[in-house]
Amino acid sequence: MYRTNTCGELRMADAGKTVTLSGWVQRVRKLGGMTFIDLRDRYGITQIVTNNEIDGALNEAANHLGREYVAQVTGTVQERTAKNPNMPTGDIEIIADSIKVLNPSEVPPFTIEDDTDGGDELRMKYRYLDIRRAAVRKNLELRHRMTMEVRRYLDGLGFLEIETPMLVGSTPEGARDFVVPSRMNQGQFYALPQSPQTLKQLLMVAGIDRYFQIVKCFRDEDLRADRQPEFTQIDCEMSFIHQDDIINTFEGMAKHLFKEIRGIELTEPFQRMTWADAMKYYGSDKPDLRFGMEFVELMDTMKGHGFGVFDNAAYIGGINAKGAAHYTRKQLDQLTEFVKRSQIGAKGLVYARVGEDGTVKSSVDKFYDQDALQALRKKMNAEPGDLILIMSGDDAMKTRKQLCELRLEMGRQLGLRDKNKFACLWVVDFPMFEWSDEEQRLMAMHHPFTNPKAEDIPMLDSDPAAVRADAYDMVINGVEVGGGSIRIHDSKLQAKMFEILGFTPEKAQEQFGFLMNAFKYGAPPHGGLAYGLDRWVSLFAGLDSIRDCIAFPKNNSGRDVMLDAPAALDQKQLDELALAIVKPEKKEA
Amino acid sequence: MYRTNTCGELRMADAGKTVTLSGWVQRVRKLGGMTFIDLRDRYGITQIVTNNEIDGALNEAANHLGREYVAQVTGTVQERTAKNPNMPTGDIEIIADSIKVLNPSEVPPFTIEDDTDGGDELRMKYRYLDIRRAAVRKNLELRHRMTMEVRRYLDGLGFLEIETPMLVGSTPEGARDFVVPSRMNQGQFYALPQSPQTLKQLLMVAGIDRYFQIVKCFRDEDLRADRQPEFTQIDCEMSFIHQDDIINTFEGMAKHLFKEIRGIELTEPFQRMTWADAMKYYGSDKPDLRFGMEFVELMDTMKGHGFGVFDNAAYIGGINAKGAAHYTRKQLDQLTEFVKRSQIGAKGLVYARVGEDGTVKSSVDKFYDQDALQALRKKMNAEPGDLILIMSGDDAMKTRKQLCELRLEMGRQLGLRDKNKFACLWVVDFPMFEWSDEEQRLMAMHHPFTNPKAEDIPMLDSDPAAVRADAYDMVINGVEVGGGSIRIHDSKLQAKMFEILGFTPEKAQEQFGFLMNAFKYGAPPHGGLAYGLDRWVSLFAGLDSIRDCIAFPKNNSGRDVMLDAPAALDQKQLDELALAIVKPEKKEA
Repeated sequence: MYRTNTCGELRMADAGKTVTLSGWVQRVRKLGGMTFIDLRDRYGITQIVTNNEIDGALNEAANHLGREYVAQVTGTVQERTAKNPNMPTGDIEIIADSIKVLNPSEVPPFTIEDDTDGGDELRMKYRYLDIRRAAVRKNLELRHRMTMEVRRYLDGLGFLEIETPMLVGSTPEGARDFVVPSRMNQGQFYALPQSPQTLKQLLMVAGIDRYFQIVKCFRDEDLRADRQPEFTQIDCEMSFIHQDDIINTFEGMAKHLFKEIRGIELTEPFQRMTWADAMKYYGSDKPDLRFGMEFVELMDTMKGHGFGVFDNAAYIGGINAKGAAHYTRKQLDQLTEFVKRSQIGAKGLVYARVGEDGTVKSSVDKFYDQDALQALRKKMNAEPGDLILIMSGDDAMKTRKQLCELRLEMGRQLGLRDKNKFACLWVVDFPMFEWSDEEQRLMAMHHPFTNPKAEDIPMLDSDPAAVRADAYDMVINGVEVGGGSIRIHDSKLQAKMFEILGFTPEKAQEQFGFLMNAFKYGAPPHGGLAYGLDRWVSLFAGLDSIRDCIAFPKNNSGRDVMLDAPAALDQKQLDELALAIVKPEKKEA
Repeated sequence: MYRTNTCGELRMADAGKTVTLSGWVQRVRKLGGMTFIDLRDRYGITQIVTNNEIDGALNEAANHLGREYVAQVTGTVQERTAKNPNMPTGDIEIIADSIKVLNPSEVPPFTIEDDTDGGDELRMKYRYLDIRRAAVRKNLELRHRMTMEVRRYLDGLGFLEIETPMLVGSTPEGARDFVVPSRMNQGQFYALPQSPQTLKQLLMVAGIDRYFQIVKCFRDEDLRADRQPEFTQIDCEMSFIHQDDIINTFEGMAKHLFKEIRGIELTEPFQRMTWADAMKYYGSDKPDLRFGMEFVELMDTMKGHGFGVFDNAAYIGGINAKGAAHYTRKQLDQLTEFVKRSQIGAKGLVYARVGEDGTVKSSVDKFYDQDALQALRKKMNAEPGDLILIMSGDDAMKTRKQLCELRLEMGRQLGLRDKNKFACLWVVDFPMFEWSDEEQRLMAMHHPFTNPKAEDIPMLDSDPAAVRADAYDMVINGVEVGGGSIRIHDSKLQAKMFEILGFTPEKAQEQFGFLMNAFKYGAPPHGGLAYGLDRWVSLFAGLDSIRDCIAFPKNNSGRDVMLDAPAALDQKQLDELALAIVKPEKKEA
């Protein structure tokens, strides 16, 4: 070992000991004839001192240390005269006897501080320096602790972690696959898994009973802000269970994580809300319940007063922003601009302020007299000082989603979305299907193996769009951290499902034959769920993006700018794979 | 839940309880008016009983259960009259009140028994049925327990598990990469990692200090018996350490696993042997030390007696097969055939039996008188009843490898390679380079980042082939379970290494620029190792192949016969990737 101790562990009790530390030079300060070095490693920072009067050569060496030099220091632990209560090692310092440079460093391209001067691009290119920053490193430590606790919890319940292959077959009915050309089977391709969905179901057929895996998954999608082409899933499946068993098991896991990782004891059961209610009251299948501001439908209240926009609307809904009546005209105009942005696409916004005396003043006063506005106030349960915001539109679902954006923005503006407060929720009873305009057919909302609710099975023929599924999402603070379903284990029902989804029996056999065959040999009732690890870690870390809880993330073009991947391939490699590039449209250095 | 208990947990103490079990029908036996069902799940088998005299309909239902039907049984736990001491639930049985078929099964294509009638091909195609067999399932359970213990041990020492990306850049100086075409960067490719080697080194530069990861790795090689295109590595790296620190840390981990998984307490330090000694005494860099039979060099002893084969040999070596003098001429001829097989390629074999009276009789008696043979006997430390086997050749290294095969075969024949006995060893001081006839240059034996031994650095210029490395392998029972090295952290030494390996500075920069750049910003001294998880699990499971400790392995053509992957791609997908297939040579259904 190049050290007797880490830079984070020495305390007053160690005073007098001779120690050796190794680490990176955070900074060097000269003060009179003395030099102070902050030596840093993963575990902390320890102050090193040299004194020109005691050892001129050593002091000189200390003065020549540059930022991020790797140094080994031997010396004696001593109580500090000026203690620093802000750091765990702040009571002591090391009086150096020797300093050895293990490796020098060029001046780093950005400062290795929590508040760095490095921009995103630069930080990603030099990610190995970025990770030296405690702000990034802490997220990786958190991620490690979370996966350890997930494994500990599930292992305790008899779950087996089983690795499923990465080189699998292409799965239709999902996002686009990344593919891997096979050299031994030229002209053929493996796919990288979008999730181990079918394999974990096969493990249930195999009698594994309780399976989990923390596993990389891949989706070749055009990347949005919070998407990565490779991401990590906590993937779980159980046999001989009903939906409540899954929910109880994994609510237990969530509570375990909250307790172990965040020190929060959640004693109440998580709220459960049907998908229909979530859409009705929050315009979202992942409502942020850290605050109320539920939608109130205002069709009866607001129609028939001559205001054409409302009179012709298919949906009118309002939210009550408690205590926001003080919003200025400018603020309200900004809110209107917010909902009119192309990402949201609303036509406008109606507001009504409740004055201190209880009277209501709205932006559509000419259509509504005070009686009508008081009826609105009553309906909205608004009190003096409250601000009512109303949206309408000719597509109820679309309008609800717009109102959802407004609600979230108001929550943000009013400080109701505290990162250290957590509101956990199960959304249940998702619709089985959703209509795809692009495909002009019903698509599985979750996936084609999802079990319809027993009481809705008769509607599969008569009204498939109304069928609900045994599907559930775990939502925390408006983030869908996980979701899953009870699966179909009856091959006849599965065949019917494929039929509704527009598969011919031949096509179903071609694409899912291995699963349908497996189901002929005694599939147990089973179900499961999968968590997005990256998202969950971000949530616990209080990050806005998943990127900083991933050691080496890719940018929005799917590139690793540090490794400079992807890159062109040697012709020899292409030949071995029997591949030719048809039209290289882009080429980067 | 579809059950109150598993099929493995009921005991005498449960007698009288009403329980519900769910599982698979292992078998159904009729005995008089009674029917006995063995109901199986992952946890065990429980006997269910119905009686025609008590409930004729129920008994009839029981008689209609087929093999591998999924059934749910409710009944009362009762003490058995005829107990079965061979199964944990053998003291009880369930008197059924109701039997519900949860899912029927077609007749499985092979028996779900430890000793199945299914061949390899069939078992792989129906792997989900194969895994129902306890013989396979137990390996997956063992694998789970091993990874849990590895994580527990390393977490306890402050190692962080950090996920490195799967979509990386292609690495030269290794095996062939699997590649992944990029749609967003057409004409460019990612590679799947052969190991996270460079990334873990970057994590050390990043100050992570102690890293590990249980991670999938990929090599596109022509598959031999015990190779898979995707395999799992326990990948580890530490900073501020010397070779001994790594060896001590991971010897500790091995001992932890032996204790927790196999119940074996290894109290002695593992033997350490230089690569040179391993080659000299065992003809292998991974000697099986469960038995002795070390090579004895016989150049002085056997030369100069007129036996041309020996007189002209560059190497003559013998092994003493204790107590094997009883080997018949036929057995000895078979041994000769064994070493002459093309995989081994020796010309022949000389033997000498030591009789009960101490006289030696050899196959080359006409060249050696009894005095010469007694000298041989003394040199070989042979006693009455021993069999001396001698090989020679004009290439010492090649001959040693042949003699190694003979030694292993004799160990096998003499029952000295007990699967429940473990001999652990560190092989150290590997050569830095090995000559490649194909490339006509020195190649890195471990990899180009391996640190040369400090005392050998002066030889880098004068005699690079003689330079030894700070590299080490952990060998158990002749299996290399893991290996690693101390890495170069000095960019000048790294540049020199690339030069010796025949890289121009430009090529080194192109291929390893990101690593060499990183090393300019304060790389700590570091090193690590990686274990082959599949091999280690196989060793603990007593398996001859790694295949049955992998849930869904690929066959020797790299195919997953269950998923039927790889497969042809839609033209649409090829177009999106800007790829064309040049010459599909093979095509499978």
